[in-house]
Order: sequence, then structure tokens, then C-alpha cells
Amino acid sequence: MWRCAGGVMETPLNCAEEQQLPPPLPDSWSTVTPQEPTTDRKDKGNAVGFVLVHAGAGYHSESKAKEYKHVCKRACQRAVDRLKAGALAVDAVTAALVELEDSPFTNAGMGSNLNLSGEIECDASIMDGKSLHYGAVGAVSGINNPVLVANRLLSEAQKGKLSAGRIPPCFLVGRGAHDWAVSHGIPPCPSEKMATKFSLSAYKRNKHKMELAEKVETGFNHHSKKRRQASETENGSGLLDTVGAIVVDREGNVAAAVSSGGLAMKHPGRVGQAAHHGCGCWAENTSTLNPYSTAVSTSGCGEHLIRTMLARECSSAMQCEDAHQALLEAMQNKFISSPFLASEDCVLGGVIVLRCCRYSDAQPSADIQAILVEFLWSHTTESMCVGYMSAQDGKAKTHISRLPPGAVAGQSLAIEGGVCRLGGCCSLVGSSGLRGVETEEEVEEVCHQFLQLGAAHPGLFSFFRPFSGSAASRPSTTSMVTWRREREEQGQRSESVWRNNCPLCI
Amino acid sequence: MWRCAGGVMETPLNCAEEQQLPPPLPDSWSTVTPQEPTTDRKDKGNAVGFVLVHAGAGYHSESKAKEYKHVCKRACQRAVDRLKAGALAVDAVTAALVELEDSPFTNAGMGSNLNLSGEIECDASIMDGKSLHYGAVGAVSGINNPVLVANRLLSEAQKGKLSAGRIPPCFLVGRGAHDWAVSHGIPPCPSEKMATKFSLSAYKRNKHKMELAEKVETGFNHHSKKRRQASETENGSGLLDTVGAIVVDREGNVAAAVSSGGLAMKHPGRVGQAAHHGCGCWAENTSTLNPYSTAVSTSGCGEHLIRTMLARECSSAMQCEDAHQALLEAMQNKFISSPFLASEDCVLGGVIVLRCCRYSDAQPSADIQAILVEFLWSHTTESMCVGYMSAQDGKAKTHISRLPPGAVAGQSLAIEGGVCRLGGCCSLVGSSGLRGVETEEEVEEVCHQFLQLGAAHPGLFSFFRPFSGSAASRPSTTSMVTWRREREEQGQRSESVWRNNCPLCI
Repeated sequence: MWRCAGGVMETPLNCAEEQQLPPPLPDSWSTVTPQEPTTDRKDKGNAVGFVLVHAGAGYHSESKAKEYKHVCKRACQRAVDRLKAGALAVDAVTAALVELEDSPFTNAGMGSNLNLSGEIECDASIMDGKSLHYGAVGAVSGINNPVLVANRLLSEAQKGKLSAGRIPPCFLVGRGAHDWAVSHGIPPCPSEKMATKFSLSAYKRNKHKMELAEKVETGFNHHSKKRRQASETENGSGLLDTVGAIVVDREGNVAAAVSSGGLAMKHPGRVGQAAHHGCGCWAENTSTLNPYSTAVSTSGCGEHLIRTMLARECSSAMQCEDAHQALLEAMQNKFISSPFLASEDCVLGGVIVLRCCRYSDAQPSADIQAILVEFLWSHTTESMCVGYMSAQDGKAKTHISRLPPGAVAGQSLAIEGGVCRLGGCCSLVGSSGLRGVETEEEVEEVCHQFLQLGAAHPGLFSFFRPFSGSAASRPSTTSMVTWRREREEQGQRSESVWRNNCPLCI
Repeated sequence: MWRCAGGVMETPLNCAEEQQLPPPLPDSWSTVTPQEPTTDRKDKGNAVGFVLVHAGAGYHSESKAKEYKHVCKRACQRAVDRLKAGALAVDAVTAALVELEDSPFTNAGMGSNLNLSGEIECDASIMDGKSLHYGAVGAVSGINNPVLVANRLLSEAQKGKLSAGRIPPCFLVGRGAHDWAVSHGIPPCPSEKMATKFSLSAYKRNKHKMELAEKVETGFNHHSKKRRQASETENGSGLLDTVGAIVVDREGNVAAAVSSGGLAMKHPGRVGQAAHHGCGCWAENTSTLNPYSTAVSTSGCGEHLIRTMLARECSSAMQCEDAHQALLEAMQNKFISSPFLASEDCVLGGVIVLRCCRYSDAQPSADIQAILVEFLWSHTTESMCVGYMSAQDGKAKTHISRLPPGAVAGQSLAIEGGVCRLGGCCSLVGSSGLRGVETEEEVEEVCHQFLQLGAAHPGLFSFFRPFSGSAASRPSTTSMVTWRREREEQGQRSESVWRNNCPLCI
């Protein structure tokens, strides 16, 4: 079922790993480490939360890497500033998005792609994991922060019905969305101010390219209506840099948001996944049905992401025990090999995902709860730019994840991630209540894992190894708990797989 | 978990049934009956297919019942005409929708609700279960058959990429959708011609009502920003008559479509479930993962249907063994009691659902396959108008399903349905290959059920009994196969439940 290119499938996993080592961990995440068990708990309690942002799954040139990373860093900082000020996840995620939209380097808000008519039309949506409310705008012009409109739609809907029992809208498009925004105090922005030199020159290039392609096609297919399939180069080098963010706040609430200028040269009125419920973002707090709170934001080809409802699918998958394995399988089975995209030979997209649960520290008091956050990103595009930061940290860490050399965009995937622990007591020894961890032995294993990670990487971060390849060569697990079970069941084989792939065993 | 009003919960099921007996079965469905085993098979093969339409879940007054039923009848006929001409499910479902949109009595296309500005803006979508492609338009003005635009978007997307490798859109809104439609040969219609006397007078009444309500609210809540909750009367009497259809064709392909003028007095640019992937309609052919082909179309409050993604949820539920039970649970757990609508005290919506599978007749030849169609409707609104017809039938059957007296709209539900067998040999004795039917004994049971139904009702229709009430009073099963298993496991109790509720046992 894996559609990887032959060369990639044959590449030993270790080679891929050597070529794509995880980025160095941030020094500034050292405020909470196992080495500092006496740090004041109250202060930390006031600065608990985590944000993960993306500046799109697409292609990020080395020459602009610095700008992409910089905007991600600023977006993380904005969200953390809000979290530190006591804001909940929805507000923090909105703040991150505003920063991402304001950057002229991203395809959202300011500097968005121009459509066929040379206009900017934006999509954005937001979801609150606590209330499960959702707000979205589609194809809206003249608003440089579409996420603010989505946020306002969400908050207005939470207030209840309008006059005469009318139900407030959760999704507005076009001129109506613009007018609603302005009437709710969101300032309009002249469209010409939202275009940048870069977006205007890209429009001219794209228009020329399109006219040329149509001439060639007319020449080739004068008597045929069959359409040309785009070459790999066209897709592979396409910029699909929708932006998004996911946040968990001090109360453990999650929120997700996404914003996009859409595909370059799209038809006016086209709405992509960024405005589509279940496709652009998803957030669900833990419940009796769901052991984990989950948040997801997507990027890539809107039509592929709509038809597969990738955000909701990934959120649902994250309820499985092993986060890394679950996302890997979701990206493979629900995206690259999805029956909804059976006719597509190049499936382009990326996701950022987090899941979290509370657990109690047995020492010194079981009353003190911390939040364990597992966060991941995965993409089938050539690259994806991400940034992440905890409220306990001084500055964000950023990273451009790339497919390994030789991997074919749209057919292979990369997956990376980490673990972060927020608040509570620093020592994990004897901790219990972690979801999926049942026996004392399992608790010990998890503690062992976290202590090693803590010692190696201040800030309690662990990076999963990036993975692109066939099912046969993938590590069967990434969770220590699952690994232990598998080792017992299957003997030495699983253990040796782990020795090659687990950061704890090397 | 059941939110039924006390009075309804206490109503004995049999009383509810007496008050809401299934409609008489159509005489014209007698072309295929167990009494006519020698009817020419070739002719029937050319006229195989089934359509189920709805003219909305909301409130259908007795005074207009005739018009609603009449338009459903015509819509069924249009779909069947296409099926008989050899069209596949997507074309047939589109034909049904065009008829529903053209009626001035439905809230879709011609005669749609007017928005706050006194304009008509329509939503529509369509899904093809074979290709799993989807096309939608939102908030489009000046097009009297929005479903034709959705259909065209779907078919254009199936042709592959546009010039220069651009991905064709699946969802267009507003002016852009209108212009795209016109450029693809769909005729525009002046907006003033789409409004009817009825929709214009309703707009004036609504506007007056709204202004009055706002004055009253301003008086009451001058110092408070808290919004008033609408009274039950306001919701209960609201017309929410989105239209839709689901079809299975001779090849067993399914398709679904939906079209709506949206809520009366909606904000311009508001898009409802009818344009939302997974919310307004869903269709999926059978696959290695899905034993049944399923198709769903919804109606009701768009925001509730978007947030619960009801169409996709019902489709997914239909893969369970017992169709009636699965829909009952989906409507209860994924809609009325959905965590996504936890803050809503009145959840308004309705669905039409079909699922089908092929099976072989052992006599006279195992090569001849028939299609078994189970079709149902369920609603939490006061009423829902439906029509259904097989290609083997001379005319359609229509029905307005209503909640039993005393049931509270938005908190209770009604569910009804039937079974239809398309094509193949008429005798069901010895049939095998039916999904979920494993043993010879089970096959015999199913055959027994169908033969009895066939004898009682020419056309092989069986109506499930309508059900509104508490979980405690509901029948535990509706499928004979499941019943048999339960009886063996649980003894006399299940059998006595069946004696009260199964149409075969009374």
C-alpha cells in the first residue's frame, strides 16, 4: 500500500536519518528539568501552555528559510505572550495566526496568492476544543486578518441565538463575510495593500506560464478534450504555504486554526480546506469518549484535504495508543492511499498535530497535575516549516522539515515530533494516571524514558526520528510502553528494531 | 441519554404506532413480486434503480401537503426517467434535484428563502459514490439550479488538472461561483425571477417579526448583552425545507445531492450544510472497507448539521448490521445528544438514508445478481416530506412523516423506512451472498421475511414501525437475522419485544 518511489523504499532508514537529523533542542526550554526539582511551582503554573505553528507544507527555499523560521518564531511568541497573560487556547491560537497572516512571506492575509482575476481572497477557520464550536470565512477580500473574523464568528455563536430566534452563522463567505466583519469592528484593508511585490510578480509569472501552457495544450490537443496531467516538477515546486497553529492552554484546553490565501491562480470564489470544517483544523478536548485532547492544523492542496477531511481524520487517529504510529498510518491510509484520492498520483499536504492528557505526580502530592503534550508534524510535500514553544520557555524553536533526497513529493512522507511536559512536579518517578499506562512496570518504563530524555535534553523534549520509506522498513513502534509489550511478545526482533530507531537505545 | 419529553417517553410504543401507521404501499410497485417469478428478466435489467427524495425536514402544513407530495413525486419520476434512459446515479440524482429546485414550494432554487438583505443566495452539493468526487456551491445568486453547478464542478474535477497543472476547484462561492457557472454554459436567472409571492411575503413578515423582537429585547435587556433564547414555538414552526435526493443505479452506484436557500433572514454570505462536504450529503460505493454502498442527504438547521457532520456520520453508521438500529443510534448519539451540540436545547434536522448490497439468486442461476436496498428517513423536526420510487415502478410513493403528538421537536425523533429489491430473480428462496447473512439458517430467515413481505405488499416493501421514545422502550432490533441471534442468546424476552414491534410477528 506504500506508494514510495523505488529509490526511497530501498534507502536504509538509518541513511535517511543521518541525512535528516532532528534539529538541536532549544536551550531555553531548561526551566523545567529533572535537575531542578525545587523550582517554584506557582510561577510555573502561571506559565503553562504550548504552541505549535506551521508556515505551510509546500516548498521552502533555502534562501528564504530564515524568514520562514523567523515568522514562526514570532507567531509562537505571540501565542505564548497571550498564554502568560492568562488567555485560553482560542485566544492564543488566534494571536499566533495574526502574526503568520501579517507576514508578507506566507500565503495568508498580507501577501496572499492572487487569484485568476488578480485579486486576493482568503479562507480561515478556527475551532475551540472546549466548546467544540467552529468559525470560518471563505473567499473573503479586503480583510488582512481573516482569522479574526473566524474567531469572532466562533465567539458570537457561543453567545446563543440572535433576535427572533435566528441561529448565528458559523461560516460566512465573500462580500457578506467582509461586511459582517466590518460591522463587528474588524477593520477592512484595501485589497491593493494586501498584495506584495512578491505576490504581484508571482501573479505575472504564473499568468504568463498559464497562457503558455494553454497555447501548448491547444496545439497538442486541438482535437482532444483530454486534459494534460501536470508534471511532477509543477506540483513539486508549487508553493502551498497555508499557515496554522495549535495550542494547549494551562487548563488543558486545545484550539486549532488555519489561514490561507489559497492556490495561486485559483478561480475567484474557490474555497479551500482552510474554511472547511474538519478539513483545515480540528480541536477536541478530552471527554468520556476520547482519552486525549487533540488539535490539528493542515496545509497543502485544499481539494485533497477537503476530500479526505484530513484534520478530523488525524484527530481521530490520535486517540490510539502510539501517537507516532497513528499519525504515520493516518497520513498513509487516509491521505496518500485514501480511496477518496484514488485518481490522484500526487497527494500534497501536511499536518501539525498535538495530543495531550493530564497526569498526577505521586511525589510530593497526587493533587498536582501536569500536562503531557505529544506533538508531531508530517508532510508529503517537499518541505514544511514549523515552530514550537512552551510558555515555560524563553524563545521558540523552529525547523524546516524536508523529505529525504530522492523521495518523491506527493507519494512519500516525512514524520517528526516530540514530547513536552507542562507544569506539575519535575520528577516523573512514581507518576501515575498517564493514559494508556496501566501497570506499575509500564509507569516505570515511561518514567525511565522521560528521565533519560530530561537528562539528555533540558526541557523534556524527545524527537522521534524522521521516517520516509516502506512499511517493511518502518519501526514498529515509538512508544516505550508499546515497545515493551511487543518485545515480550515477539522476542529479539522488535528490540533490535528499537535499537536502530529509539533515541533512548542508541 | 434520551432527551424525549416526559409525556413521549411514557407513551407506549404501540400507541405511537397506531397514531402513525406506515402509509399504504404503492400498488404500482407490483411489477416484481414473488407471485410473478417468470416475468422477463431482461426488461427488468434495463429498468433497475431506486430514488429517495426529501422536500425538507421542518414543518409541512396539512394545507400544503398536496403540493409537497406532488413535487416529491415529480422529482422521483425525473430521476427514474434518467435511470431508465441508462443514466448513472449522479445524473439521476441531479435530475431529481432540478425538479425540487424548480418548485416554488421548496426552499431551494426558485422560491428560496430571502436573506437579511432581501436577496436569494443558494447552497448545493453533490457526491458520487463511485469516484468519491464532490462538488459544491455556496451563497450563489442568480442561478436557479445550483445543483447543476455542483454537478458540473464534480464532472470537471473528474477530468483531471487544468492548464499549467492547476487543480480544479470542488467548491466555489458567491460571485465567482455564478461566473464560473455561466462560463460553463449554465444559464443565469435574474434574482427577482427566483423570488415568489410566497417568499417575498414571508420576508416581509420575518423582517417585521425581527424588528419587533429586537425592540422587545432592547427593552428587556437594555443593560445586558445576554441574548434571548428562542422559544420552542419559534423553532418548532420554522420552515427548514432544504431538499435532497439519494439514488442507486443499475450498476449499484450510489449518489447523493442536496440544495437549499438557507435559513430565512440569514446574514448575506452565510453558507449552510448544503454546501459543506460531509454535512449536506454523502455517497460511498461498497469497497473492501465498506460492505454496503451508502447514500445520505440531510435537511434542517445548517449550523447543527455542519458541526455534527451528520451526513458522513450516518453513512458510516450504516455499515453496521442493523440499518434501523444504526440510524436510530446515529440520530440519537451523533445528533440529538452530540457533544458538538451540547449547548443546544433544540437540535433540528432530518436525514434520508439508503444502503444497498448485491446478492445472487441461487435459482435459477447464481450469476444473476439483484440489489437489496434498505432506505430510511429520520427527523427531529415536526415533519419531513419524502418520496421514493424504483425504476420498476409506474409512479412514486410520497409520505409526510410527523413526530407523534406530544413529542417535542428538537428533542425527539421519528424513524421510518423500508426495503426494496431491484432486479434479479424474483424468488428469494435459497438466495445467498447477502452481507451479514452467514449461515443457511440465516438465509432461510431472510427469505422467509422477504417472502412474507412480498405476499403482503406487492413490490417487496417492508415498513419499519415509526419510533419515538426512550431507549428503554425501543425494540432492540429490526433485522430478522439479528433477532434470531438475540433470541438464542437472551431467550424469551427479545422474542416478546419482537412480537410487539416486528411487522412479521403481529
